[in-house]
Amino acid sequence: MRMNDIIEKKKEGKPLTRSEIHYFVKGYTNNVIPDYQVSALAMAVWFNKMTKEETAILTDEMAKSGDMLDLSSLGDKTVDKHSSGGIGDKTTLIVAPIVAAAGCIVAKMSGKGLGFTGGTIDKLESIPNFNTSVSPNDFIKQAKNIGIVLAGQTGNMAPCDKKLYALRDVTATVDCMPLIASSIMSKKLAAGSKNIVLDVKCGSGAFMKTKEDATELAKEMVQIGRSCNRNVSAFITDMSTPLGFAIGNSLEVKEAVDVLKGKNVKDLKEISIELSAEMISLSLKKSKDDSIRIANEMIDSGKAYQKFLEMVMAQGGDISYIEDTSLFLKDVCSYEVKANREGFIYKLDALTLGKISVVLGAGRNVKTDKIDYNAGILLLKKRGDRVHKNETVMVLYSSNKDKLNDVKEMVVSSFEIRDIEPVNKPLILNYIN
Amino acid sequence: MRMNDIIEKKKEGKPLTRSEIHYFVKGYTNNVIPDYQVSALAMAVWFNKMTKEETAILTDEMAKSGDMLDLSSLGDKTVDKHSSGGIGDKTTLIVAPIVAAAGCIVAKMSGKGLGFTGGTIDKLESIPNFNTSVSPNDFIKQAKNIGIVLAGQTGNMAPCDKKLYALRDVTATVDCMPLIASSIMSKKLAAGSKNIVLDVKCGSGAFMKTKEDATELAKEMVQIGRSCNRNVSAFITDMSTPLGFAIGNSLEVKEAVDVLKGKNVKDLKEISIELSAEMISLSLKKSKDDSIRIANEMIDSGKAYQKFLEMVMAQGGDISYIEDTSLFLKDVCSYEVKANREGFIYKLDALTLGKISVVLGAGRNVKTDKIDYNAGILLLKKRGDRVHKNETVMVLYSSNKDKLNDVKEMVVSSFEIRDIEPVNKPLILNYIN
Repeated sequence: MRMNDIIEKKKEGKPLTRSEIHYFVKGYTNNVIPDYQVSALAMAVWFNKMTKEETAILTDEMAKSGDMLDLSSLGDKTVDKHSSGGIGDKTTLIVAPIVAAAGCIVAKMSGKGLGFTGGTIDKLESIPNFNTSVSPNDFIKQAKNIGIVLAGQTGNMAPCDKKLYALRDVTATVDCMPLIASSIMSKKLAAGSKNIVLDVKCGSGAFMKTKEDATELAKEMVQIGRSCNRNVSAFITDMSTPLGFAIGNSLEVKEAVDVLKGKNVKDLKEISIELSAEMISLSLKKSKDDSIRIANEMIDSGKAYQKFLEMVMAQGGDISYIEDTSLFLKDVCSYEVKANREGFIYKLDALTLGKISVVLGAGRNVKTDKIDYNAGILLLKKRGDRVHKNETVMVLYSSNKDKLNDVKEMVVSSFEIRDIEPVNKPLILNYIN
Repeated sequence: MRMNDIIEKKKEGKPLTRSEIHYFVKGYTNNVIPDYQVSALAMAVWFNKMTKEETAILTDEMAKSGDMLDLSSLGDKTVDKHSSGGIGDKTTLIVAPIVAAAGCIVAKMSGKGLGFTGGTIDKLESIPNFNTSVSPNDFIKQAKNIGIVLAGQTGNMAPCDKKLYALRDVTATVDCMPLIASSIMSKKLAAGSKNIVLDVKCGSGAFMKTKEDATELAKEMVQIGRSCNRNVSAFITDMSTPLGFAIGNSLEVKEAVDVLKGKNVKDLKEISIELSAEMISLSLKKSKDDSIRIANEMIDSGKAYQKFLEMVMAQGGDISYIEDTSLFLKDVCSYEVKANREGFIYKLDALTLGKISVVLGAGRNVKTDKIDYNAGILLLKKRGDRVHKNETVMVLYSSNKDKLNDVKEMVVSSFEIRDIEPVNKPLILNYIN
C-alpha cells in the first residue's frame, strides 16, 4: 500500500477502505507518513468529502491510534458530555454532579481552554488545591466510589487526531465536516463512556455559525458514535450570546455553584436540566419526562450540590470556597462598564466577550500562557434587559489593572443598546437522536 | 501575508495574485514555507485549476526562483526545443546541428533521463570523452563560436520547480495541467532562448495519453511563453510506437548520425525536418516552405553533419566514433527476438519497449543508477511491417548477459503480429502556434 495511491483515490472521489484508512492513521501516528502527504489527503477530503462509513472508520482508527480508556469495570451507566465550546459555558460543572447524584457514572476527561472558549479543567483549577492530574487507577477508583471524577487528559489519547488537528490548522482544512466530526468523536470514543450527549454550539461565539451546519455536524457525530456501539444524542444550542452571567474561571465556578444551590439562572439552568435529563435518559433508560423530573429533584434536594462537594473533596480542593464563593475574587481589580444611553440590550456578542476575557487573562492565546483565574466578565444585564443611562451593564475583572485599560475600547463593541426590544431567541435550536 | 490564507483562497476557487504567487514561490524556495502547506495548495490547484494568467505568473516566478541563463549577448536567433519525452526520441541530436548549420544559435541545456524516457545528456555521454559539464563562460563562448552547444544543467535553475515537482510526485498532484505546463516552461524560460519549439508527445509512451490532453497542454505552454515574451509554437506528435529503430544511448547516437549523413529513417527524419523547419522559421523569420527547404539542404549538403562533428570536437568527444559508428557496440551481449508467426507487426508498444530498455541498463530507475551506454533495443521491424515466421523483429543489447534473460518474457508483450495490416497513423497530430 502506498500513501500516494490513497491520496489519488480520494482525489478521484472514491471512498477509502478500512485497511487504507488504518494504513494512513497508523503511518501518520508513527511518523512514517509525512505531513505533506496527509495535508494533500486532507485537502482532497475537503473537496470530495467522506461517506458516513468512511468517517466512522476514520474516527474509530484515530481513537485506537493511542491509549483507550477502559471504563468497562464501571458498567453501562458511564456517561460523557461534549460541548463544542462556548462563552460562559460552565454546564459540565452543573450537569456532572446532577447526573452522578441521579446514579449515572461520570468519569470524564476534559481539556484546557485555548482561544476564546474556556476549558473545564481551568475552571476547576481555580478552586484552590483542586487536583486535575489524577492517575488512571485513582480515576477509576473515584468513579466507582462516588460516581464522579473530572480530570485532565492522561496518557496518549488519540495522538493521530492531535497531529491531524494541528496540521489542518495551517493548511486551510479546518472547515471540513467529516474531519471535524471524526476529530471530536475520536477523543470521545477513546475516553470510554458508553453514553454520550453532545452540545453543539451555534452562533457568533461558536465554530458552527449556522443552525444547518451545526445540525449536519451533530448528525454526523451521532451516527459515528452509534456505529461504534455508543448511545449518542445531540442538542444544537445558541451561542450568539454568552451562557449565564459569568465569563472567566472562578466567576463561572461561583455561578455553577449558585445553580447547584438552587439559584435560577434562567438560560444556564434550562440548558443544564435538558442536558442532564438526556444523560440520565440515555444511561439509566428513563423516559424524558422522568429524567427531567429527576434532574430537577437532584438540585432541589441539594443532592447535586452535595455530589459536587464530594468531588471537590475527593480531588483535594478547598471546599470552603464552594461553601462560601465570596472567597473567590479577592485582590482583583475591576472596571464597571456603563450604558451610554437608555434602552434595551439588543446585542451582547459572545465572540467579542470571549476575546475580551482572554485579554483580561481568563484564557490562553498559546498553550504556555498562564491563566489568571479571577479574570473575566460578570454581566449584570443580558440580551433583552432594559437599562438606564449610566447603569452598569457588566463588570470586568483582572489581577492586572493595565489589562482593564487594554479592553476598554473593545468592550464598547460587545453590546448594543436600542430603543426596541430584541426578538427572543430560543436557546435550544435542535435535538438529534 | 500568510500561506494558510493563500491555500484558503485557492480552495475557495479564487485566482491568486502575483504577490501571493511570488510570496509562496519565494518562501518555498527558501524553505520558509513547509512542504505540507505547498502540497495542500497543489491539491487545491488540482481541484480548482488556475487561470491562464495565474499559470503564466507561476511559471515566471518559478523561472526567477533561481539562476536565469542570460543569452542576450547571442542576439535574437537563440532557439530551444523541448520534447515531453519519448521512446527512441533522438531528435535533439538531429535538429540542433541542422538549425545551427542554418544560422540559428542552439545554446541548450538538457536533462538526464529518469524512468523509461531517455535523456539527451546520457546519449551524448555515450560518445567517449564527450563533456557535458560546460562552465557558463565556455557555454556562451561555444554558442558564439560555432552556434551550437548541448550541455547539462549548471547552476541553480528553477529550484522551486525542482522542489514542487518532487513533492507533486508523492502527493498525487502530478496530473494537473497548469502545474505540468508551468513546470516545463519555467525551466525553458530560465534557459534563456528567445525562440522555443515544443514537441508534446502523445500516446502510450508519453505522459499525455490523448490528443486532446496533449493539445490542451501545448496551448497552455505556448500561451505562457508568449506572455513571457518568447516566440513559441508546438507540435503534438505520436508516441504510441518508438521513434526510429534505435532505443538506447549509443544506438540512438548512431541512428541520429545516420540521419545526419543522409539516411532516410522515415518517421525520424520527417519529425526532425518539421521541428528544424519550425525552429528556423521562428528564429530566422523565414516562411514555412523556405524553412523546410533549408532544413533539407542542411542535411543534403552535409552541413548539418559537419556541425555535429564540430560540436563533438568542441566538447572533447572522440569523433572517430561519429565517423565510424560501428565503433560503438563493442563487447556487448545481444539477443534476437524472433517472430513466432507470419503476418504484420500490428502493435509495437513504446511504453513496454521503454521499460525493457531501462531493465537492460539504458535508463535509470533512481537518479543514482549507472547507465550502460550500449544497452538498448534495435528494431528491425516497425509497426505495419510484414514478417515471416522466425524472422528477427528486434535485437536486444546489454553489457550484462543476465539482463537479456530478465526481459525475455516482457518483450513478448511488446509487439503483436496479426494477419491484417494496421491502419497507418499520422506522426504529427496537431500544430499550435
